[in-house]
Amino acid sequence: MVLGGDGYLGWPTAMRFSARGHRVAVVDNFLRRRHHIEQATDSLTPIRSLQERSDAWRELTERTIELHIGDVNDYSFFEQVMSDFQPDAVIHYGEQPSAPWSMRSRRHAVETQANNVLGTLNLLFAMRDHAPDCHLIKLGTMGEYGTPNIDIEEGFIEIQHNGRRDVLPYPKQPGSFYHLSKVHDSHNIIFACRVWGLRATDLNQGVVYGVETDETRIDERLCTRFDYDESFGTALNRFCVQAIAGHPLTVYGLGGQTRGFLNIRDTLQCVELTAGNPPPHGEYRVFNQFTEQFSVVQLAQIVQRAARELGIEVQISHIPDPRVEKEEHYYNAKHSKLTELGLEPHLLSEELVESMLKVIIKFRERIDAGAILPKIKWNPVRSRAQISEPV
Amino acid sequence: MVLGGDGYLGWPTAMRFSARGHRVAVVDNFLRRRHHIEQATDSLTPIRSLQERSDAWRELTERTIELHIGDVNDYSFFEQVMSDFQPDAVIHYGEQPSAPWSMRSRRHAVETQANNVLGTLNLLFAMRDHAPDCHLIKLGTMGEYGTPNIDIEEGFIEIQHNGRRDVLPYPKQPGSFYHLSKVHDSHNIIFACRVWGLRATDLNQGVVYGVETDETRIDERLCTRFDYDESFGTALNRFCVQAIAGHPLTVYGLGGQTRGFLNIRDTLQCVELTAGNPPPHGEYRVFNQFTEQFSVVQLAQIVQRAARELGIEVQISHIPDPRVEKEEHYYNAKHSKLTELGLEPHLLSEELVESMLKVIIKFRERIDAGAILPKIKWNPVRSRAQISEPV
Repeated sequence: MVLGGDGYLGWPTAMRFSARGHRVAVVDNFLRRRHHIEQATDSLTPIRSLQERSDAWRELTERTIELHIGDVNDYSFFEQVMSDFQPDAVIHYGEQPSAPWSMRSRRHAVETQANNVLGTLNLLFAMRDHAPDCHLIKLGTMGEYGTPNIDIEEGFIEIQHNGRRDVLPYPKQPGSFYHLSKVHDSHNIIFACRVWGLRATDLNQGVVYGVETDETRIDERLCTRFDYDESFGTALNRFCVQAIAGHPLTVYGLGGQTRGFLNIRDTLQCVELTAGNPPPHGEYRVFNQFTEQFSVVQLAQIVQRAARELGIEVQISHIPDPRVEKEEHYYNAKHSKLTELGLEPHLLSEELVESMLKVIIKFRERIDAGAILPKIKWNPVRSRAQISEPV
Repeated sequence: MVLGGDGYLGWPTAMRFSARGHRVAVVDNFLRRRHHIEQATDSLTPIRSLQERSDAWRELTERTIELHIGDVNDYSFFEQVMSDFQPDAVIHYGEQPSAPWSMRSRRHAVETQANNVLGTLNLLFAMRDHAPDCHLIKLGTMGEYGTPNIDIEEGFIEIQHNGRRDVLPYPKQPGSFYHLSKVHDSHNIIFACRVWGLRATDLNQGVVYGVETDETRIDERLCTRFDYDESFGTALNRFCVQAIAGHPLTVYGLGGQTRGFLNIRDTLQCVELTAGNPPPHGEYRVFNQFTEQFSVVQLAQIVQRAARELGIEVQISHIPDPRVEKEEHYYNAKHSKLTELGLEPHLLSEELVESMLKVIIKFRERIDAGAILPKIKWNPVRSRAQISEPV
């Protein structure tokens, strides 16, 4: 069962498991499509309705992806779906995934935490009461950790303190109401595993880039969304669209912000490896799901070089950082657990960026350049309130 | 401004600040009174309506406590109250405070986290937009920490790891959906202080006991609630009522569960000290607010001895622990920051317990002994699911 199965990662994931012969159900409430309507933006790729996608998939592969349109927070709906489908694994992408969106206003912050935290809480109860053997594969984010001055471990850290020791949840310093919602989820899931004996893998995913998977390439009707707006576009995807739109690549602040990144193909690989290797009952485990670390400036430079190969000259410009975050910092995050399970990374290369640029060129008429630059600020009242230096 | 100002601690806090000459506003949505209706239980003490209390306070002291009846989550209501009242400090007791209540069912878990987490989120936005200089005094709980195998520090811990060091939020291992809601709050508040320059003190409070304060003693109409039911009664208060009801003191499991405790008088003292010593803008700080550590068995023995002084013989019995928790564990929690500000603890003595027992005797006809024993179980499906040993 794929929650959020209409999304950027959810739809390719649903196809991948279906292609492997699994019975697949998708649950989606079309939250992202509604947010694009609110924002007057759209995916660069012309995605089809979920029904059209599912029909095309059946026509092309003779396999069925079941659709359940509704909200995890509508418990009478969701409980029935869980009870009927009896999933072996739930892959939970069904959350509002944008940091800027969550910072737009009070309403957006409250809606994000209500949707994400209460949704996951409802899911945990549905698992407890209707599918207690099911493996929860939850999409968390590397952004839960923030940028501590020590190495980032995978979910837990051994602490020696005053002559004693314990292994404790890694301290979290999330940087937006969205990232906070994922931290809240993590705590709720740890508890449910401990008290009810559920089992879960929390995939603390880095920033995903790319637009094609083996299944999306089969037919244009199967393509996944490619967001490049300030809310839902991730850094590399946004830079690639700027390059094609003839706009300078806009780096936030100094651009020393370093994060983990991975190819959308590796997201699918990681989720498959996780589903194939479930933890025992009662265990909550965390995998840091990314393949490489880059600073934002490094990403911009890679796009600049790849664009040059296609004969496109693009500038890099620094704009004031709309977020409150460190623009230079230590960053060293472990990510060996998925490698140990067999992950074979598709590393970022200029060739890969070139192929992304070619896809974007194909849809360049659909680019709305005005949607890219950040208008949402983490601290809209900074000039009014007297605040200390962000740390 | 006291959120939850109709409650066990909220009402005495409102009177204390009013008695000191501060202008005081109370906000309450009567959630606790509604929960008692749902549970068919009541306070042992015959509390008056909030309006009656406020009228009596004015009659007796010629001081006014302003009442604002409504919900922090009703933002159009709450934003107006904040904007009009312009508090110097908000003392935030306005949450669902019971672990067992949050574990009753899916609905109770979701309602608890929605009420607490979204309520605090709304409060943070109201402060940002209408009272950015206000000091948030937030009631957290010692239960946020759980029972780690290392010393518990006050909110943050210095970690040395792989040759580097940082001071990070203390890892949290809360033991119920209620305790989880407080952990979620803490993360949200840290973020709001960092990004918006708000200032907050998180009072990680231990288990409160006692029923009288200087102000409640003025007149019976000013008494505060005294809950002894399985949901809202705290351990010592519950034992005292069992002693008077002629019921054995029911210790959950081995009774080695160790927690921090404090007298309700010290809650008021701590909140006053905190309000008088606000942090600078942008700072989030944590005070562990308790005065002594006891195991549950130790508490039961203290009540047993105090009852004997009044000629009452009471047994101690061990019943299966309805919670999933360690029944024997290491526990050493720091609590020096409030002492450094001048806290002079009222330590637990048999004399104090005797005086509590005398208050309970006065209202013994109101005791519903059937309300005390635990019916809510942390894991109602334990026998069904195959779970690992709780850790």
